Amino acid sequence: MQKVGLLLGRSARAWRSVRMASSGVARRDPLANKVALVTASTDGIGFAIARRLAQDGAHVVVSSRKQQNVDRAVAALQGEGLSVSGTICHVGKAEDRERLVATILDINVKAAALMTKVVVPEMEKRGGGSVVIVASIAAFNPFPGLGPYNVSKTALLGLTKNLAIELAPRNIRVNCLAPGLIKTSFSSVFWMDKAKEESMKETLRIRRIGTPEECAGIVSFMCSEDASYITGETVVVGGGTPSRL
Amino acid sequence: MQKVGLLLGRSARAWRSVRMASSGVARRDPLANKVALVTASTDGIGFAIARRLAQDGAHVVVSSRKQQNVDRAVAALQGEGLSVSGTICHVGKAEDRERLVATILDINVKAAALMTKVVVPEMEKRGGGSVVIVASIAAFNPFPGLGPYNVSKTALLGLTKNLAIELAPRNIRVNCLAPGLIKTSFSSVFWMDKAKEESMKETLRIRRIGTPEECAGIVSFMCSEDASYITGETVVVGGGTPSRL
Amino acid sequence: MQKVGLLLGRSARAWRSVRMASSGVARRDPLANKVALVTASTDGIGFAIARRLAQDGAHVVVSSRKQQNVDRAVAALQGEGLSVSGTICHVGKAEDRERLVATILDINVKAAALMTKVVVPEMEKRGGGSVVIVASIAAFNPFPGLGPYNVSKTALLGLTKNLAIELAPRNIRVNCLAPGLIKTSFSSVFWMDKAKEESMKETLRIRRIGTPEECAGIVSFMCSEDASYITGETVVVGGGTPSRL
Amino acid sequence: MQKVGLLLGRSARAWRSVRMASSGVARRDPLANKVALVTASTDGIGFAIARRLAQDGAHVVVSSRKQQNVDRAVAALQGEGLSVSGTICHVGKAEDRERLVATILDINVKAAALMTKVVVPEMEKRGGGSVVIVASIAAFNPFPGLGPYNVSKTALLGLTKNLAIELAPRNIRVNCLAPGLIKTSFSSVFWMDKAKEESMKETLRIRRIGTPEECAGIVSFMCSEDASYITGETVVVGGGTPSRL
Repeated sequence: MQKVGLLLGRSARAWRSVRMASSGVARRDPLANKVALVTASTDGIGFAIARRLAQDGAHVVVSSRKQQNVDRAVAALQGEGLSVSGTICHVGKAEDRERLVATILDINVKAAALMTKVVVPEMEKRGGGSVVIVASIAAFNPFPGLGPYNVSKTALLGLTKNLAIELAPRNIRVNCLAPGLIKTSFSSVFWMDKAKEESMKETLRIRRIGTPEECAGIVSFMCSEDASYITGETVVVGGGTPSRL
Repeated sequence: MQKVGLLLGRSARAWRSVRMASSGVARRDPLANKVALVTASTDGIGFAIARRLAQDGAHVVVSSRKQQNVDRAVAALQGEGLSVSGTICHVGKAEDRERLVATILDINVKAAALMTKVVVPEMEKRGGGSVVIVASIAAFNPFPGLGPYNVSKTALLGLTKNLAIELAPRNIRVNCLAPGLIKTSFSSVFWMDKAKEESMKETLRIRRIGTPEECAGIVSFMCSEDASYITGETVVVGGGTPSRL
Repeated sequence: MQKVGLLLGRSARAWRSVRMASSGVARRDPLANKVALVTASTDGIGFAIARRLAQDGAHVVVSSRKQQNVDRAVAALQGEGLSVSGTICHVGKAEDRERLVATILDINVKAAALMTKVVVPEMEKRGGGSVVIVASIAAFNPFPGLGPYNVSKTALLGLTKNLAIELAPRNIRVNCLAPGLIKTSFSSVFWMDKAKEESMKETLRIRRIGTPEECAGIVSFMCSEDASYITGETVVVGGGTPSRL
Repeated sequence: MQKVGLLLGRSARAWRSVRMASSGVARRDPLANKVALVTASTDGIGFAIARRLAQDGAHVVVSSRKQQNVDRAVAALQGEGLSVSGTICHVGKAEDRERLVATILDINVKAAALMTKVVVPEMEKRGGGSVVIVASIAAFNPFPGLGPYNVSKTALLGLTKNLAIELAPRNIRVNCLAPGLIKTSFSSVFWMDKAKEESMKETLRIRRIGTPEECAGIVSFMCSEDASYITGETVVVGGGTPSRL
């Protein structure tokens, strides 16, 4: 059988009947009593994700390689009344990191694999957990001129599948977010001048560039109990740009 | 850059610091002021979706082909304090429906297309809306012996893409849920006897059959403003069973 | 381990050494002693496929709904010294066909399923066979304004998977060709005026529109013994246009 | 419109009419006047590909890291009357190679990218060329316990897309072969003992493990002019094992 859930937007007086208080207490803070570690989260999509997870009830650990960026992000989020602390992200020793940083493939794939392995024991102690890897729509349809970046993102789709299989017995789910064109400093080359932005929007179905906040909700969802049967999956947040079936 | 959001489960006293009230008022009832029409929603996955959308603040219209099933479902949900009404689903005239029912491909694909077209004008009047089509993991990896069902589900992946493109200019998003093996009467053949259920679980990464409720959260999410930049996408809720990258 | 086969084009004097006659006799007529039924084969991609299969050694049965088109195509191919005969394609009785023709979904999906079922007994008698279904790149990335066509093509991807599974025990392989933009009367709207053709080519990586002949080789290949371990797969012939990983 | 090419196997006396010589001279040696460099080609799938490309008319350069393996493979193929020579494969300097060999991701992805870059100038001089990368069905559905291998293969799907886009303007096509379970020394763990082989075959639609030769035909095809409009695509040779739509 097939079902279609159809949702009608905005004020809906016509059909509205008596509304009673929903009993969905559990939904108030879907991430209550959880701790979230968000890497590369001092600005852009990572920062929006950190803020959202905190708004949804998690204690968030903001992380990055530079202390001052971490301090700034923590201060900003604490200023919003959110439960946030910060840490510098150490992927191995300094000299290892040097080599690691050598290539985008290393940064994007090995660091993600490494980070996951590092937190797994902690998650196991708590009875389970959830990992969300951030790939890109370029994993499916390459951004021109960004070969190594694109390939590393495709690899992350595979990493998601592999970690999901490997960690399922430990009650750890692993999913993936693939943002499309999102307004961040990283993507600024695509929208810095107005003409370029207009030409980019031509290819988008939703005729605007996305915001970091629009990537954050699905991460919170993936981390919540609502996603308890979802693992190994990638969700594209791309405004309808060609991705895959 | 690549980010990993890692969420640690359960009570997390160790890292917890001062928690302040999150300001996320908008998150309390993510579907407030929305009307949701859920077809085939008197039991199984459809019923779980209807309940969840109501719990998240929408007024839900339960729909099915049989009056008594609709009445029963409406009564059950109203008994939980939810804002729900019911309607019989008419897909065209009776004789058309007869022919329509002729084949699974017709039911699953044309009815979904038709239903969407029917509600689009109403959505437009309200300034936009969201459609979630329910396909199946069998759209990617066929269930043995269910050819026409499987093919119709694959077609729904395409319908999702096509409607998303067509309706984006009217501020209507169209996405798709692809459930894996979920404990419903439809799938009972797979788990009715204990031996069969055990053998099915062998193929699942999360070693249990999913529940209808585990399909409902993503539908509510897709309908909410949190998914404002997601359209044309399919999310698999399949416990890690092979689907696609 | 990973291997890269690299082929250098054109005259290759530099590296050439003694060339001896290859022993590949079996490769001369890869489809010798085979009979190929090609539906909708009186022009465009179907005609190119019919010709190619005949050139590769098969006896080809050209088929279409109109006698005069069949006669014309058979005469043309026999004039090239190819082993070809013709037949009108009957999908059920006339009145059934009328209803069948009613919708594109019916034509494209049910007819393909029906035709396959019709020829399976004949294939079984001969010890096996091969079916190649023609979908479209629009199965993955919709052509604008062609919703039902696109959806029917997506459904064919699923039909391919399902028939492959169902028919494997009978030694019948089922694969699929997904052409991109190919110069046929069907696609003429995209290249009829020069300006439109230029703008179309912008989106192609290989900067020209494909020819029907460029779709024919892969069909011959899929039908040959060379493809003996390939079933359930779709190959895109699209000049690099976005399709899927 | 939709077409089905149906090919009936074996001797087909019933329908056979007069057969005249096909004019397909060009098809006799589809790779005549071409030079093929096949890396890791001293045994298994690579060796079968090398032999097949030579049988189809190319001069083949067999390559591997060990001189004695190259010598043995060259001697074997020359003994079959094929035009073959050999070379040791140098990917950069020795110390670089050491580091390169450090991880599977490096070997499989960077070496493929590097090798391609190395031969591009030579291909350009000759007016174009064709690259076929060998990934694995594990790129789509991971082999258990082989995480890094699987992820590297997924990355190769992305590398294929990226190189195809980058090299299209130079008349170089880039495609990918994804073998399923093939009887080689690499996969021997899956079929060494009879019980394991039987249990593996359960999951295959074509109920036998494939041979290296069954992977070679598609590579020859991809390198030939017959594939002139195919670039950026991956073809699975997997006997019907779950891959992707």
